[in-house]
Amino acid sequence: MSDASALVGEVLDEYGEVTRAVLRDYLQPREPARHLYAPAADYPQRGGRMLRPSLCIATARAFGAAAEDAARSAAAVELMHNAFLVHDDVEDESDTRRGRPTLHALHGVPIAVNVGDALSFMGLQALMDNRARLGTWLTLRLLEDASRMVQESVEGQAMELGWRRDNTLDLAEDDYLRMVFKKTCWYTTVFPVRAGALIGTRSDRGLERFLRFGLFLGAAFQIQDDLLNLAGEERRYGKELGGDIWEGKRTLMLIELLRRATAAERERLAAFLATPRAARGADEVAWVRDRMESYGCLERARQVAHGLAGAARHEFESCFGGLPDGRDRRFVAELVTWVLSRS
Amino acid sequence: MSDASALVGEVLDEYGEVTRAVLRDYLQPREPARHLYAPAADYPQRGGRMLRPSLCIATARAFGAAAEDAARSAAAVELMHNAFLVHDDVEDESDTRRGRPTLHALHGVPIAVNVGDALSFMGLQALMDNRARLGTWLTLRLLEDASRMVQESVEGQAMELGWRRDNTLDLAEDDYLRMVFKKTCWYTTVFPVRAGALIGTRSDRGLERFLRFGLFLGAAFQIQDDLLNLAGEERRYGKELGGDIWEGKRTLMLIELLRRATAAERERLAAFLATPRAARGADEVAWVRDRMESYGCLERARQVAHGLAGAARHEFESCFGGLPDGRDRRFVAELVTWVLSRS
Repeated sequence: MSDASALVGEVLDEYGEVTRAVLRDYLQPREPARHLYAPAADYPQRGGRMLRPSLCIATARAFGAAAEDAARSAAAVELMHNAFLVHDDVEDESDTRRGRPTLHALHGVPIAVNVGDALSFMGLQALMDNRARLGTWLTLRLLEDASRMVQESVEGQAMELGWRRDNTLDLAEDDYLRMVFKKTCWYTTVFPVRAGALIGTRSDRGLERFLRFGLFLGAAFQIQDDLLNLAGEERRYGKELGGDIWEGKRTLMLIELLRRATAAERERLAAFLATPRAARGADEVAWVRDRMESYGCLERARQVAHGLAGAARHEFESCFGGLPDGRDRRFVAELVTWVLSRS
Repeated sequence: MSDASALVGEVLDEYGEVTRAVLRDYLQPREPARHLYAPAADYPQRGGRMLRPSLCIATARAFGAAAEDAARSAAAVELMHNAFLVHDDVEDESDTRRGRPTLHALHGVPIAVNVGDALSFMGLQALMDNRARLGTWLTLRLLEDASRMVQESVEGQAMELGWRRDNTLDLAEDDYLRMVFKKTCWYTTVFPVRAGALIGTRSDRGLERFLRFGLFLGAAFQIQDDLLNLAGEERRYGKELGGDIWEGKRTLMLIELLRRATAAERERLAAFLATPRAARGADEVAWVRDRMESYGCLERARQVAHGLAGAARHEFESCFGGLPDGRDRRFVAELVTWVLSRS
């Protein structure tokens, strides 16, 4: 493990712990427990890497704030991300999440939808609870950015759900990136880094620079995530391997395959994607996986991810370049490499 | 039609129109249209009575504000209520809403869940857009009360979903009221009237009085709604008649029936409620409906609703009693009678 990657791991552990301490305020046991607050605490306790809250805290600190100034917003990011995951799993009919059955698999769709709504309001509540420490202007400004995050995410989600519902086959890399910028990047990188900058600078001047940095970093992260879904080790990845193929998810690899396949293969793919999820067979999934490999679709996705990481590195300079060197600034810089090298 | 009931109709029409003008800002066509913003505009365009936003505007005006001061909050109430309806219909597997197929029946569960999330953020956005007119303190204070509304609603929803999931049979009137206070009242009456009072008085002193008024009024409203589901005219009510029985909903009438039925009837009821919704038969539904009538369960529910309306009338005095007489104050007073007399 390189020093850089060790730094990323250390900071994720440290700021992850800071965030968990605040999360406990919101996820403590209370009534109604069995059908609401216990399932609400489930995903957050499954041990994510805490990338999103750590990015928020590190950015705030890089701009001069204390970790405590950003901890509540970091917890809010994690709560709202988990709210999104719960609904996303329902919408994608996913079976597993972080190595265990999804929330709707455990409790049924009705309770899962309601739990997602609960996690969402808890995230908002955590942002509102910033008021005593950060004042009304900054608290409201953070809420406004969070509202934009939710808007972008539901729009990206609608694009992706529409592609599946209509069984859309004619998609280009640009379509994929527009979807991911909205669906993944705002939650994963754009809002965390913008919230950190708002808290660190106590101003919203120049906030647009952080948008580009977050979009490039987040998209590189998502493509790597999709590659791991195809190629990672199940135990470490925590979702069923190849689950994206089972779900008919329009990943960059699937989009590339649809472009590169022969007419006959394209027809077979179209039929596979038109089959309801439960009726799809392991043989067909393996065939799709094999065709992706043969046509170099994984390699192409890796190239795109590397290009995005390069763009993120460039934007990093315009966002963080003027700051003195320090552990938090280095963490954010190393994250750009880390998102591609993690396994 | 009495003068009082005419006043209620007039004010609902007038403030409903004020609210719809603001709603158009949020529900205008934009991309992605087909799988997000068009379905998001569907329920709000199905022509509800606009009770919730009208109560908000009338309360604000009764306390001296202009209708324009409250219009954006009124629109927010309507957006968040519709968000709740979309998820509620998914959770209850309801077939129709306001006389047309439910959103998930039209677009599938995945898109409906996402559209509910979109309507929810639009409601928050509308509350945040109060800032220019109402200032940061009041804007944030309204958001805090809205967050409490969402919390109470998901808790009430969890109680009700838990009863169905566990096929709970031993329930008392108190359980029903605790559930409805949370699930229905906060959206329908408590938040609208509190938001109106916050805007009208520009203060949050004495806000707890409005909680009790809203709880009593909202619960009377919900019981009447459940009675109409059993006994109303389908064309006017807009949901399938007896739909609550089909869904196994724990209404006050069902709870009473479970308490009054013989052991054999109770067993038959338990079996009916344990049957999946799709497998329930029209004969059994008719039998349940008939037993409710025979045992006086509808009559008992009417009594409880009247008792609650009486309590609301009492609380009205402590909330609005000190204000000069006027159209808005009279509207709120008449609403207490109207919720029971509407058909």
